[in-house]
Amino acid sequence: MTETTIEPYLRNAWYLGAWSDEVADGGHLARTIMSQPLVFFRGPDGKAAALEDRCCHRGAPLTHGNVVEAGIECGYHGLIFDGSGQCVSIPGADSIPPQTKVRSYPVVERQEFIWIWMGDAERADESKIIDYPHHDDHAKWPHCKQWLPIESNYMMMVDNLMDLTHLAYVHAKTIGGNPQAHSRAEVDSRETDTGAHYIRWMEDATPPPTYQKAVGFEGNVDRWWDFEFVAPSSVIQWNGAVDVGKGARENQDQPGFHLRLFHSATPETDTTFHYFWSAANGYQQDDPEATDVLYSEIAPTFLEDKMIMEGQQARIDLDPDRPLVTIPSDKALTHARTAIRRLIAEERAELAQAAE
Amino acid sequence: MTETTIEPYLRNAWYLGAWSDEVADGGHLARTIMSQPLVFFRGPDGKAAALEDRCCHRGAPLTHGNVVEAGIECGYHGLIFDGSGQCVSIPGADSIPPQTKVRSYPVVERQEFIWIWMGDAERADESKIIDYPHHDDHAKWPHCKQWLPIESNYMMMVDNLMDLTHLAYVHAKTIGGNPQAHSRAEVDSRETDTGAHYIRWMEDATPPPTYQKAVGFEGNVDRWWDFEFVAPSSVIQWNGAVDVGKGARENQDQPGFHLRLFHSATPETDTTFHYFWSAANGYQQDDPEATDVLYSEIAPTFLEDKMIMEGQQARIDLDPDRPLVTIPSDKALTHARTAIRRLIAEERAELAQAAE
Amino acid sequence: MTETTIEPYLRNAWYLGAWSDEVADGGHLARTIMSQPLVFFRGPDGKAAALEDRCCHRGAPLTHGNVVEAGIECGYHGLIFDGSGQCVSIPGADSIPPQTKVRSYPVVERQEFIWIWMGDAERADESKIIDYPHHDDHAKWPHCKQWLPIESNYMMMVDNLMDLTHLAYVHAKTIGGNPQAHSRAEVDSRETDTGAHYIRWMEDATPPPTYQKAVGFEGNVDRWWDFEFVAPSSVIQWNGAVDVGKGARENQDQPGFHLRLFHSATPETDTTFHYFWSAANGYQQDDPEATDVLYSEIAPTFLEDKMIMEGQQARIDLDPDRPLVTIPSDKALTHARTAIRRLIAEERAELAQAAE
Repeated sequence: MTETTIEPYLRNAWYLGAWSDEVADGGHLARTIMSQPLVFFRGPDGKAAALEDRCCHRGAPLTHGNVVEAGIECGYHGLIFDGSGQCVSIPGADSIPPQTKVRSYPVVERQEFIWIWMGDAERADESKIIDYPHHDDHAKWPHCKQWLPIESNYMMMVDNLMDLTHLAYVHAKTIGGNPQAHSRAEVDSRETDTGAHYIRWMEDATPPPTYQKAVGFEGNVDRWWDFEFVAPSSVIQWNGAVDVGKGARENQDQPGFHLRLFHSATPETDTTFHYFWSAANGYQQDDPEATDVLYSEIAPTFLEDKMIMEGQQARIDLDPDRPLVTIPSDKALTHARTAIRRLIAEERAELAQAAE
Repeated sequence: MTETTIEPYLRNAWYLGAWSDEVADGGHLARTIMSQPLVFFRGPDGKAAALEDRCCHRGAPLTHGNVVEAGIECGYHGLIFDGSGQCVSIPGADSIPPQTKVRSYPVVERQEFIWIWMGDAERADESKIIDYPHHDDHAKWPHCKQWLPIESNYMMMVDNLMDLTHLAYVHAKTIGGNPQAHSRAEVDSRETDTGAHYIRWMEDATPPPTYQKAVGFEGNVDRWWDFEFVAPSSVIQWNGAVDVGKGARENQDQPGFHLRLFHSATPETDTTFHYFWSAANGYQQDDPEATDVLYSEIAPTFLEDKMIMEGQQARIDLDPDRPLVTIPSDKALTHARTAIRRLIAEERAELAQAAE
Repeated sequence: MTETTIEPYLRNAWYLGAWSDEVADGGHLARTIMSQPLVFFRGPDGKAAALEDRCCHRGAPLTHGNVVEAGIECGYHGLIFDGSGQCVSIPGADSIPPQTKVRSYPVVERQEFIWIWMGDAERADESKIIDYPHHDDHAKWPHCKQWLPIESNYMMMVDNLMDLTHLAYVHAKTIGGNPQAHSRAEVDSRETDTGAHYIRWMEDATPPPTYQKAVGFEGNVDRWWDFEFVAPSSVIQWNGAVDVGKGARENQDQPGFHLRLFHSATPETDTTFHYFWSAANGYQQDDPEATDVLYSEIAPTFLEDKMIMEGQQARIDLDPDRPLVTIPSDKALTHARTAIRRLIAEERAELAQAAE
């Protein structure tokens, strides 16, 4: 049996705060992360920033105001805060007391992500941000993406992705597939330093119609499903296939069928999260319609997952500590859960030591 | 003054879980009883079962899945549970660990009711189920029925039915009637072993137009209103009239006007319940339209009761222990409240003794 | 820094319960004040009364019933309560036990207000009710008014009105104005026995177009904004202008431009209130359209304030005791907050002494 399914958070870690295009030039975005209401905004210089969404003067949400030259202006009495959270203008005041500031959060924008650090600002280390170069390469990896609010603990997304046997049930009416194929498959799963990884191979197999249509294989293929959970809450997925006999196991990154998905679950509260996903078609890259078709086929499946994850949470809320039963297909999921618990325990030990 | 109006539950008792026709062949129904989400389902063999609506694997609601040959299949990873709650299939597993099961609840289906036992399964005794043969006799008792969700404690329904003086106020615009008629009437009320009973007689009276139209009386009638509260939460109602001089008091069950209603209040939570009612016309049985007319006249009155019961609960929620004032028409209601408290106290004493 | 922004209530004080025309002849109004659900009603004699909205018999809301000759009749079993809360009729009962009553609250109706006293009835002193004669003088002060529910603590309204610098930000798209004008202005603010008062003068100024259109000034004017906070929660506002050289400072009440607003915030709960406002045009009194124009221009601004006050409350709810930062324009607001705290402290001391 496993323990509670509501995981606490890793504090000192980068979370995906927003897609870059959710924060327009001169615009702002209200988003709650780890129960902290935030305002993401982008000044005229194009630089993104994140502040707590609460003016220090009378508590008004800064998201009721406007982005101006010097920062974000409170919509109540016009105080202006720059990207560091420091107040730079108080209408009617000759000086600005230093405590006139709001908390700011480190953000790093790259590869179409705005990453945010919710922990101690001094510990923010950009080198720990996931590298996902596919977003930079629109020619080779045209892609589509979405944000979805989900009413469940963030780890439900990781559970979901780390056990593919759900495809035949949750997605029976969409991408579905044969229940036996995934549940009987040999899965190579292991914990990693930063999370967990699993891969499932299907060798010398007839390519499915969608693969065939996308790439035009002439014979059988070696197929794989590759999932990497990277703590705190991202999952990098690579579905692929190459012609039999080309040594796919030794070199996955060769011509064939390639579909890459990026999933990230950012906690909004203990029991809700933001689901960010992108899907990149590494096939028919010259045909913009291929990406549109991919989106229209894949987007509904996330709503199917949303329903099931929210149903889980509703039941878990009734008795969060009630044990669950483990089955064989939970192998990779268990590695992911073990990893996040280990990392949270390490963080706590580190913080306790630092406090001594 | 009376005490709190929010009653606890009698645990070891049969409650009305669903109307038979709410659970289709091969279908399922989500319903929460006593704060426990349940799935009622009916397998291909037509037998009804009730399980907790939570898969033991990852907590997903079973009501997101489908009924299959062997039981109900979880919509997340395909585990199948039979009517006893035992898991009979785990995709990808060679064996099924015995703890792979969910709680099942005894159910008995008869007379168009699906009764459920929420207490200790070993104590479930079918002989304690209310016998209501009128539902089996469609020729003599054609009937209509409904399920309604009510946002109040279940005993508000019993209170409501045990004091007919509300007719002139709550139902002033529908079935209504003369306020004086009910409030001044002599009522014979008493506690019973299983609840409480009252009857009100009006003798040598002119039959009301609806009775006249239904039966065609030639002279005056002896009329009665007969209500029996059967714990934990059903009320059996019989409105009737027979020709004067036929000895109605000694034998109510003779030709005349007969209307039978069955009411049952199944707790969903402490402050919400499921209202089930059926109404059988023991007159004009050959005219299906008579039952339709009965339904269209009576169904709106339950919405009037719903409004008042929910209004009561909203006030009681503010201070559940605040006393209420008793008035003369509360006589039968008080018998019902006394009975349910006695039965709950007896159950607790019995359980305490068993625990020694 | 200031302390918590959620103020407790002054108990022994008159609050604005309703506009007179919200309670029709023979009608009733459901309204919760200080977490107490109330029914305001007006009998055939035209006299207004306020009772707790809960029948003492079975807890049903009296607002589900009707006003009758003798008082308000419960919609469940027909008990009737007069304006003092005493039951005067129980259907089916020969006598009425004296405890058959509900709590009544002193009300005083005058000048289009129905004032209510939520504290000890013996302490209710009509001489403490605000005098607002402008409502009685429709010829000189034609006016319009509104009730608005706001999801914030009642003192947010007082804060809002005691700092005019918000005009340029909250109302930028409506009445707006120049941010510098208000924030740099000298404000004469002081605490009073019953609250706080401030006035801002702008002398020898060009009259704004709306003033010009309303009154037809020929030259410059002396303008003022006069705000008086009267505890527990009313603010009396007077915007005016008269020709330069007419001694406006010594005598504001002379021909010119005059706009009077009355604002009152009645707590519904700790974090919600009823906003009542009226606006009287002391110009173009002969043109009913002038009052309509005033309403259509001013009503949307209260929705702008509602949004910001509710936004504040949402943030304050997260940590009600978290300090706020004071800025220069908070001067009058701080006087108002100091006053209400002093009065609440005095009331508590007085009650403590009385209890000895």
